[in-house]
Amino acid sequence: MDYKIYEDIISQRMKAARFRHSKNVAKEAIRLAKKYGADPDKAELAGILHDATKETEADEQMKLIAKAGIQLSTLELESPKLWHAISGSAFVQVELGIEDQEVIDAIRYHTTGRAGMTLLDKVIFIADFISADRDYEGVDRMRKIAEKSLDDAVLEGMAFTIADLAERKLTIAPDTFAGYNEFAAMKARTKK
Amino acid sequence: MDYKIYEDIISQRMKAARFRHSKNVAKEAIRLAKKYGADPDKAELAGILHDATKETEADEQMKLIAKAGIQLSTLELESPKLWHAISGSAFVQVELGIEDQEVIDAIRYHTTGRAGMTLLDKVIFIADFISADRDYEGVDRMRKIAEKSLDDAVLEGMAFTIADLAERKLTIAPDTFAGYNEFAAMKARTKK
Repeated sequence: MDYKIYEDIISQRMKAARFRHSKNVAKEAIRLAKKYGADPDKAELAGILHDATKETEADEQMKLIAKAGIQLSTLELESPKLWHAISGSAFVQVELGIEDQEVIDAIRYHTTGRAGMTLLDKVIFIADFISADRDYEGVDRMRKIAEKSLDDAVLEGMAFTIADLAERKLTIAPDTFAGYNEFAAMKARTKK
Repeated sequence: MDYKIYEDIISQRMKAARFRHSKNVAKEAIRLAKKYGADPDKAELAGILHDATKETEADEQMKLIAKAGIQLSTLELESPKLWHAISGSAFVQVELGIEDQEVIDAIRYHTTGRAGMTLLDKVIFIADFISADRDYEGVDRMRKIAEKSLDDAVLEGMAFTIADLAERKLTIAPDTFAGYNEFAAMKARTKK
């Protein structure tokens, strides 16, 4: 299937604002991919598809996850905010027939990150943080960091997520924790 | 050995201010133990001993840790701030001959916390946060929470530690993360 068809499928699965966000993430992902040496076509594809199931009913998401053979942890089951990334990666496999593991993983880990992130994982993770429609406090700082170092931006994004969850006393995904510690340890080593 | 002897040993291992802090933690630990049903004698002992090696040279701490047969993880090895709790638990075993696992563990986990904290672990963790000498921003709030619920105070303390480390891009101990998520998940379940 070519990219335009995926865009049409996605446009029918969500409200206009989220579809605009998806297109912005795809656009930003291409830019980051070119800048940092990832595959721009994969970046565009993962970008447009990353929120494919964000407006999908919970039971439908669970069916997709089961169809893809993904087993949720107790923490994941109890964290509805983590579902769409997982069910999105399931959707692109079982409904769109996408077999590219890099694309599947970049969607799967776009919210949490993980230890051992691929270049494409990082591109999608950050494109989602700094796409043109984003206007949270601190987004300009994040955009500046992303211009200098993709790894620093990922660390910044994970640290932001962790601090925000901790302040609200919400559980933190083990993937986020593992990814964060990996980047934080790397940073500490390069400072020595 | 009776408590007075431990107090004398501790007084000779640290500066006056830290010794005062140790006595304050012991005192607060007794109070919390009585309030929440832990053993006040164990609380006093773990309280006075909890920072036993905080002013001990790094190489000496490493020797104690090795003598006690404790294997440090890579993250622990790279995190000097975690050493004193581990070497402190080693010190009380190998130098003082303390065999009470509850006391040893309460010292071992007084900085990080852990999943499955014992009542004594919680008492020492919180006594260290709210002892009379503490005056950080937020200590009054912490004292109030500790009067209502020891578990809420532990969650608050771990969340504080995690947010602080994340803001400074420093690694977070897996024990802190596991303990935090356990309490945060428990809180989410009781809210439902």
